[in-house]
Amino acid sequence: MSPHTEALRDQACLIVHGPDQPGLVAAVTALIARNAGNIVTLDQYSDNPEGGAFFQRVVFHRPDLAAAIPEIEADLDKTLTPYGMQWALTDQSIPKRMAVLASTSDHCLLELLWRHRRGELPVTIPMVISNHTNTAEDVRSFGIPFFHVHSQGPDKTEAEAKILELLKGNVDFVVLARYMQIISEDFLDQVGVPVINIHHSFLPAFIGAAPYRKAKERGVKLIGATSHYVTKDLDEGPIIEQDVARVNHTMTAADLQARGAYVERAVLSRAVQWHAEDRVIQHGNHTIVF
Amino acid sequence: MSPHTEALRDQACLIVHGPDQPGLVAAVTALIARNAGNIVTLDQYSDNPEGGAFFQRVVFHRPDLAAAIPEIEADLDKTLTPYGMQWALTDQSIPKRMAVLASTSDHCLLELLWRHRRGELPVTIPMVISNHTNTAEDVRSFGIPFFHVHSQGPDKTEAEAKILELLKGNVDFVVLARYMQIISEDFLDQVGVPVINIHHSFLPAFIGAAPYRKAKERGVKLIGATSHYVTKDLDEGPIIEQDVARVNHTMTAADLQARGAYVERAVLSRAVQWHAEDRVIQHGNHTIVF
Amino acid sequence: MSPHTEALRDQACLIVHGPDQPGLVAAVTALIARNAGNIVTLDQYSDNPEGGAFFQRVVFHRPDLAAAIPEIEADLDKTLTPYGMQWALTDQSIPKRMAVLASTSDHCLLELLWRHRRGELPVTIPMVISNHTNTAEDVRSFGIPFFHVHSQGPDKTEAEAKILELLKGNVDFVVLARYMQIISEDFLDQVGVPVINIHHSFLPAFIGAAPYRKAKERGVKLIGATSHYVTKDLDEGPIIEQDVARVNHTMTAADLQARGAYVERAVLSRAVQWHAEDRVIQHGNHTIVF
Amino acid sequence: MSPHTEALRDQACLIVHGPDQPGLVAAVTALIARNAGNIVTLDQYSDNPEGGAFFQRVVFHRPDLAAAIPEIEADLDKTLTPYGMQWALTDQSIPKRMAVLASTSDHCLLELLWRHRRGELPVTIPMVISNHTNTAEDVRSFGIPFFHVHSQGPDKTEAEAKILELLKGNVDFVVLARYMQIISEDFLDQVGVPVINIHHSFLPAFIGAAPYRKAKERGVKLIGATSHYVTKDLDEGPIIEQDVARVNHTMTAADLQARGAYVERAVLSRAVQWHAEDRVIQHGNHTIVF
Repeated sequence: MSPHTEALRDQACLIVHGPDQPGLVAAVTALIARNAGNIVTLDQYSDNPEGGAFFQRVVFHRPDLAAAIPEIEADLDKTLTPYGMQWALTDQSIPKRMAVLASTSDHCLLELLWRHRRGELPVTIPMVISNHTNTAEDVRSFGIPFFHVHSQGPDKTEAEAKILELLKGNVDFVVLARYMQIISEDFLDQVGVPVINIHHSFLPAFIGAAPYRKAKERGVKLIGATSHYVTKDLDEGPIIEQDVARVNHTMTAADLQARGAYVERAVLSRAVQWHAEDRVIQHGNHTIVF
Repeated sequence: MSPHTEALRDQACLIVHGPDQPGLVAAVTALIARNAGNIVTLDQYSDNPEGGAFFQRVVFHRPDLAAAIPEIEADLDKTLTPYGMQWALTDQSIPKRMAVLASTSDHCLLELLWRHRRGELPVTIPMVISNHTNTAEDVRSFGIPFFHVHSQGPDKTEAEAKILELLKGNVDFVVLARYMQIISEDFLDQVGVPVINIHHSFLPAFIGAAPYRKAKERGVKLIGATSHYVTKDLDEGPIIEQDVARVNHTMTAADLQARGAYVERAVLSRAVQWHAEDRVIQHGNHTIVF
Repeated sequence: MSPHTEALRDQACLIVHGPDQPGLVAAVTALIARNAGNIVTLDQYSDNPEGGAFFQRVVFHRPDLAAAIPEIEADLDKTLTPYGMQWALTDQSIPKRMAVLASTSDHCLLELLWRHRRGELPVTIPMVISNHTNTAEDVRSFGIPFFHVHSQGPDKTEAEAKILELLKGNVDFVVLARYMQIISEDFLDQVGVPVINIHHSFLPAFIGAAPYRKAKERGVKLIGATSHYVTKDLDEGPIIEQDVARVNHTMTAADLQARGAYVERAVLSRAVQWHAEDRVIQHGNHTIVF
Repeated sequence: MSPHTEALRDQACLIVHGPDQPGLVAAVTALIARNAGNIVTLDQYSDNPEGGAFFQRVVFHRPDLAAAIPEIEADLDKTLTPYGMQWALTDQSIPKRMAVLASTSDHCLLELLWRHRRGELPVTIPMVISNHTNTAEDVRSFGIPFFHVHSQGPDKTEAEAKILELLKGNVDFVVLARYMQIISEDFLDQVGVPVINIHHSFLPAFIGAAPYRKAKERGVKLIGATSHYVTKDLDEGPIIEQDVARVNHTMTAADLQARGAYVERAVLSRAVQWHAEDRVIQHGNHTIVF
């Protein structure tokens, strides 16, 4: 058990969302109190006090949490069903299992592995999958399994099937760390866990391929990167995090790309961390980030 | 009633702080629920889950709030006294009364008046007091009373007495908007309301006079500004907000000062807004900003 | 003569651009030396060392500049014509004449007037023109003439004709400070001076109307503003400056707009200052900003 | 020859500084022209047009540069000596040799190695020296020699002697990448090359040890990092680069340290790159960064 995990021992995270209504916060916090929990942090948001949607994230400490989870869940079910709320309870000492899909670029991939090694990402990384082999040695030097899945030509069916076989049952979410293959709708249907992407532009500017070239052509003064959940609409999924860096007329498209790499790895790392910490709630095409 | 105030009708803000202990959040939220309040936002923080201090800010909507305040206060008293907590309940539709003290510089003063006119600061401004007269016409064009209090020579006793006479009973907090007179301990003892200052450096760097000149001499690459509550220890009070701007070797001390003015007005405006919205809790020499 | 202008006495700014070729910088700097000029700053950029375009901005001090300008211009003509270069020489002690066009929003307009009054913008402001009257009193309190040009209904021909009549011969550039009327191609053909606009989004994201509403719908985590030269292609002109501010899920479209106003006024002010200081060179649909 | 180096083939960088006087830029650019150089970029700055100091950086392309350097140097000597100027000419295709000194922290060290491997730092790294062994494997996986120099106890004389022995004649500059040993004056006297440090605070705030703890105690809202040249006055050398990150009341001193690590590695990387590209000129206790 890492020091990180130790600090999260007996700590639970409860996410609640659904139609806003009076008394919800009281109902949830009373439930935690009667289950011997002590609230560490509580974030709450309603998108409209009159008939809007309600979102809450509560982290609480509860001695012997692991043993108590079934009874807390039963109480949640009994308490929140009348309100029509959705909820999810997680034991924060159990890190999420994250697969990383990559191609030749290593900056996002290595940043995730390195932050993980520093104990800053509450995840385990059961595998890195790439359609190239150039990062294999680096990945394995972090003690992480590396799988090469060849993906050449227009038909990705076979490659995606192999990837799904590796992922199935083994991961809680997937990160596309500059993975340069388009994910099929079929893949998304089957993968069954959230997929997080990093797009190398300040979306919705420069949707699609070659954003740094387009940014150079348009003469923008800032470039950006966007991390979002992957949906069937390419580059249109709910945005988790974005950031920008200043550029100027002296920089070529290649310079923008080099500078942008540092924005990409920072933005993706924050998005992954927040997702892993259950801070991100998807709501329609938006995210609530607590 | 301004549109701003209208939006805040029947909205209360409750601040609670004191020793952390299990069940506090549940006790407070249950209290709000049984007093017919619907929570709009809730922020909560403990500086140490084991025996630390607990801080909470809850904004809730309660029909006919004004009439209900006495009974809510009685309930708070009964409920929170056993926990040893401090609390404060405010009706958010009643703006705080803010006095501004200024000298010759107009950038912080005008920014506050202008944001107030746009309805972005939930305050009234019963008076601006200056030891100079150059801003009188500008201030009055905003429909705000302007008082000149002469303050020449080393003895500030008379000037401070006049200022206190103007302030007493008329204001809920005081803002020093680049007021270039040192406030005496005696003044602070008597004024009886919070005093917010803007210091023209990134504290604790360049404490004291002439920070832009010192910044130039040290060759820093960023300059900053700091807004803080005024205490008897000059430049040492609890920091509310800070920000910086990038500078370079080509800039003179005068250039730093001109650039810095834009940081100062932004930092002070944010600090004032947060204070006026009851977002800032002082705790020792720190602030909790929700 | 303001202190600002005094500091710029006898200071010239020379802009040179055209096809890059060896010896250009030497030719220009030798010319300045033999005309008794002492270089204060020199910026130079080639977009491609092999057959690209060359851009240079030189500020030099030359005693009795006003009298010497004709002979320096003759020398420039003789020296740079063989290279096929374009050039422009300006006396920096003569501020550019700037007209501001505005509508109901005052934040960009007042920011420009206020920076001008502080001596931070090297311009004179012979007029503010608005299709509304709400800012008249504020503008005139700065000692600036205010003209109201009514612009109702789909046909803007008459309004534009009146504006052109006011501008013709009286201004060196025009600033659209949140002027909410679409400028016709005909107007641009006739105005004969550069026109600078502030667009309330991070272009090319959210081109067109209601960018803050679109930003809210897309769920972006940063909003921005863009200042650009106006061309016949709406929102497509060369970008001078951009910046962003962080936003979050709690903010409504109205909140984004209020936050964005502070980005807009800062971005437009920088663009105006750089243009007024001859720091911006247009090249195709790009700008070089020295 | 790496692609990076290839792009810099036949490219020279000339630094000139000394007392400002008319005609200097013309003299330098004429010299470059008559030596068949084509100027790529030119930066120039005078800290005071009247009797101040003059600084210039010119990058120029000159076919067969390596062969021509002696004659260009002779010309520089002849041309600039009458002006009393100092100058330095470097062949940009020859990367500087950089030694890195580290302790247990790996974030600054790995960032430099990783940027170097990406071809973004124009340096070679002949050695990493550490007083700990934990980073040895990582360093060597980059193909870089790692030397462990034990440094225990109060007397650093022996350790410093060993380090000097390793460095002498082998490096052009030294980077202290969170090297947690105080460098003696004697070491600085003998090392004979510039030494760059990263300090984990926004200097001059929190000079000395444990800046993150001090930052937490003072309750600042931003933390920072500073890269500077090392002089005999600890934490007082000329600043090359600084940056900050926003923090809040919920963060512990350990959180500040973790967040600060990302500022440190970015600030140090920029400072190293600028130094390696001959963009930084020391002048008294300041730097000019072109």
